Amino acid sequence: MDRETLIARRRRLLGDAPLFYDEPLHIVRGEGVWLYAADGRRYLDCYNNVPHVGHCHPRVVEALTRQAATLNVHTRYLHETILDYSERLLETLHESLSKVMYVCTGSEANDQALRIARHASGGRGIICTNLTYHGNTAAVDAISPLFYGRVTPHPDVRTIPYPDSYRPRDGLAGAALTEAYLAEVAAAIESFAQAGVPFAGLIVCSIFANEGLPDVPPGFMERASALVRAAGGLVIADEVQAGFGRTGQMWGYELMGFTPDIVTMGKPMGNGHPVAAVVARGELIDAFRRDVMYFNTFGGNPVSCAVAAAVLDVMEDEGLIEHARVTGDYVRERLGELAARDERIGDIRGHGLWIGVELVHDRGSREPATDLTRRVVNTMKERGILMNRIGEFDNVLKMRPPMPFAREHADLVVDALDEVLRAL
Amino acid sequence: MDRETLIARRRRLLGDAPLFYDEPLHIVRGEGVWLYAADGRRYLDCYNNVPHVGHCHPRVVEALTRQAATLNVHTRYLHETILDYSERLLETLHESLSKVMYVCTGSEANDQALRIARHASGGRGIICTNLTYHGNTAAVDAISPLFYGRVTPHPDVRTIPYPDSYRPRDGLAGAALTEAYLAEVAAAIESFAQAGVPFAGLIVCSIFANEGLPDVPPGFMERASALVRAAGGLVIADEVQAGFGRTGQMWGYELMGFTPDIVTMGKPMGNGHPVAAVVARGELIDAFRRDVMYFNTFGGNPVSCAVAAAVLDVMEDEGLIEHARVTGDYVRERLGELAARDERIGDIRGHGLWIGVELVHDRGSREPATDLTRRVVNTMKERGILMNRIGEFDNVLKMRPPMPFAREHADLVVDALDEVLRAL
Repeated sequence: MDRETLIARRRRLLGDAPLFYDEPLHIVRGEGVWLYAADGRRYLDCYNNVPHVGHCHPRVVEALTRQAATLNVHTRYLHETILDYSERLLETLHESLSKVMYVCTGSEANDQALRIARHASGGRGIICTNLTYHGNTAAVDAISPLFYGRVTPHPDVRTIPYPDSYRPRDGLAGAALTEAYLAEVAAAIESFAQAGVPFAGLIVCSIFANEGLPDVPPGFMERASALVRAAGGLVIADEVQAGFGRTGQMWGYELMGFTPDIVTMGKPMGNGHPVAAVVARGELIDAFRRDVMYFNTFGGNPVSCAVAAAVLDVMEDEGLIEHARVTGDYVRERLGELAARDERIGDIRGHGLWIGVELVHDRGSREPATDLTRRVVNTMKERGILMNRIGEFDNVLKMRPPMPFAREHADLVVDALDEVLRAL
Repeated sequence: MDRETLIARRRRLLGDAPLFYDEPLHIVRGEGVWLYAADGRRYLDCYNNVPHVGHCHPRVVEALTRQAATLNVHTRYLHETILDYSERLLETLHESLSKVMYVCTGSEANDQALRIARHASGGRGIICTNLTYHGNTAAVDAISPLFYGRVTPHPDVRTIPYPDSYRPRDGLAGAALTEAYLAEVAAAIESFAQAGVPFAGLIVCSIFANEGLPDVPPGFMERASALVRAAGGLVIADEVQAGFGRTGQMWGYELMGFTPDIVTMGKPMGNGHPVAAVVARGELIDAFRRDVMYFNTFGGNPVSCAVAAAVLDVMEDEGLIEHARVTGDYVRERLGELAARDERIGDIRGHGLWIGVELVHDRGSREPATDLTRRVVNTMKERGILMNRIGEFDNVLKMRPPMPFAREHADLVVDALDEVLRAL
C-alpha cells in the first residue's frame, strides 16, 4: 500500500494523529540501531530511546515469549518475578528510595507521583518548568505546558523558567545565575501561599530534556530541592527520559546532584513493552497504600517484569551505561570538530547518548536557526539518518539513539551532518 | 520460597500492595481456564476476565512473539497493523463510533474519555454511580467512589444511586422504577447547574459490573442518555469490563439498549498485554486532536495491535461470543437448580459469562449474607476454584472466567458450590 493511501486510511480511522517528517516514513522492521522501511531502505536510528538495548533485542524477545507462554496475570497472586526485579531495580537507586509501585506508562507514573506527593504533603500546588512535558493524563497535562505556549492555566500549577545557561537571565553566570533561578522557585512557592493553595512539590525531568538539555547552573537542583522541602513539598524526578543509563549514569538525578523523594520511570524500561514505575521513599508508598485503594491491572505483571529484567541483563552484559558515556563523549568530540568550522553550531550539550546540538545564525547573536534545524532533520532523514529537534525555539537537534549505538554509527551521523550543514 | 517469605519480601519491596484471599496463592503457570500454583495444585479460573481467550493462548503468544521480533515502535511512523486492527475494531461498533485513540490501560482510556467529553462539551461536571470504579488516575479516581464509602468529594462530580431492581427504591417496579432513577440523573444535572459547574456528561460501566450486575430497569440507559444530551453532556460507556463479547454480545451498550458518544475498552483487549482504547464519534476525536497535543508512546504500537488482532482472530475462530452466551445461560440454569433448594441464593444475574449470584439470609428479607459470601469464596478456593465477590454489600459471587470456559467447567463449579453451600 503506498504512502498516500496509508495516510488517508489513517486519517479516516485515527483522526489527525501525529506523524513524523514532512514525508512520513513507513517502517516495517527494526534491528539494533537500524530501522527498515517498506521500500527496503534502511535508516540509522538516532532518535528512539524506547528500544533502549536495541530494536527487537533477541534476549528481550526471548524473555517476553517465555513468560507470555507461561503466565501473564495481575499482581494479586504471589509471584517471584516482580520481587526479583524490584530488588534489582531498587538496588540501583538511592537507599532512601526503597519501595516501588508499577504502572504501564510514564504518564501513569507521573499521575501517581502527583497523587503520592499531594497525599503526603496534604497540598495541591505543583511547580514545573515552563517548557516541560510529563505526559497525557488530565492531571499530568496540567503540568505539561510544552504544547501550550508556555502558559498553564491550572490554579494548582506554577511554572518557572527552565534553568538555562546558554541564554542566561540578565547575562548572569555561575553562582549568580543559580541564585536567579532559585529566586523563581521561591517566588512560585510564595505565589501558592498568597493564593491560599497548599504546596505539594516540584516535578522536573532530571536532565531537562524537553527544555533542550541545558547546562544547569551549579547546585541548582540540590538547592531547589531544599527550598521545596522547607516549604513542606516533595521533589519528583521524572526519569522517564533520563533514566536507565542513557546519560552515562543510571539515573539523571545522580548527574544533577540531588536526591528526589519520588522517581518516575518508563519509556526504556521494557524496551518498548508498556511497563513503567514509581519509586519513592518507603514511608510515602506505605502511607499512600494505607489510605488509597490503588491497583493497576497490568502493572508489574510477570511478563512486564520478565521483560524489564531482560533489559537490565542486557545493559549489564553489554556494558551499555559505560558504553553510552564513552560513545556520547566521542559524538560530542566529533561534533566539536564541526563546530570549529561552522558558526551555526551554537552549543553542543547533553550527557552520554542524550545529545543536543543547538543551531543558531551565529554564535555572537545566538539567534535560533529554527528553520535550518527543521531542514537539517528532514535532509538527514533523506540521507537515511533519523533524528529530531527540541528546545524553546525548536532549534536543538535531538539525538538519543538505542544504546548499542557505536563509534562507527557516530561517524556516519557526524559525517552526514557535516555534509548536510555545508549544503544548507 | 515459602509463602510467608514471599509475603514478607513483597511487603518490603512493594509496601502493602493488595493480595487475594485470606491465604494468598502463589501462581506460576496458566493454560486455558486453569491456573497452576507453585505446589503443583491446579485451580479452575472463574475470576480472570483479562486472559480473555484463555491463559497463554498459543495464537496470542505467537502473534506477540512474531511482532516483537520484527518491530515495536511508536505510531509516528506509518504502519499497517494499527490500521488493519482499527478497521476491524470499528466494524464491531455502532457506525457513529468511527475513530479510535490508543492507550495502554483502562484507566488511561477513561482519563482520555473524560478529557474528550470535557473538551467537546466545554463543561466539567461528570455524573457516575455511587458504587462504581473506573480506574486509578487522579481524574478517574474522582469518579470512582467504590472504595470511598459511596461519597465522592470532588466538586466536579455527582453520584447517582445505581439502578437496582433487586432492592428497588421505595418498592417500585417496572416503568415507575425507571422514572425514579431517571429523576436522580435529572437531579444531578440540576445540581451542577445550581452550583455553576458546567455539565460535561455521564459515565457508566455498561453492565454496572462493580454495582453487582443489577437487572437495570427497562429503558433506563436510553432515556438517561437523552437527558444527558439534552443538557449538553456526553455519554461515556466504560466497556473495560463489559466489552469484547463476554456478555454474549460484543458490547455491553448493545445489551443495555443505548448508543454512547464515547466508548472505552481495555482489560480483555490484549489477553493481558497492556493495550486499551477510546473509540468515539469521529467529530469528537477530530476536535480533540485539533486542539490538544495528545500522544501515547506505547499506545497502538505494532505489538499491541498484533496481539489485539490475534484476540479477535481467536474469538472469531472459536466462536467465543456465542459460546459465552450459551455457556453463561447454562451456568445460570444450573444455579437455578441450586436456588430451588437453597433460600440463601437470593438472585442470579448477569449476561453471558459475566455471572453474579447474590447471597442473602433468606429471600423474604433479602438481607445480604456478606460473611457467608466471604466464606464461600475462600472455601471454593480451597476446593480449587477461583471466584470473588462484588456489590454494595460484598455479597454477590462474581464469576467471569476466561471465555473458553465450557459446560464441563460449569458443572465442576456448580457442583462444588452446591457442596460448599450445604456445608456452610
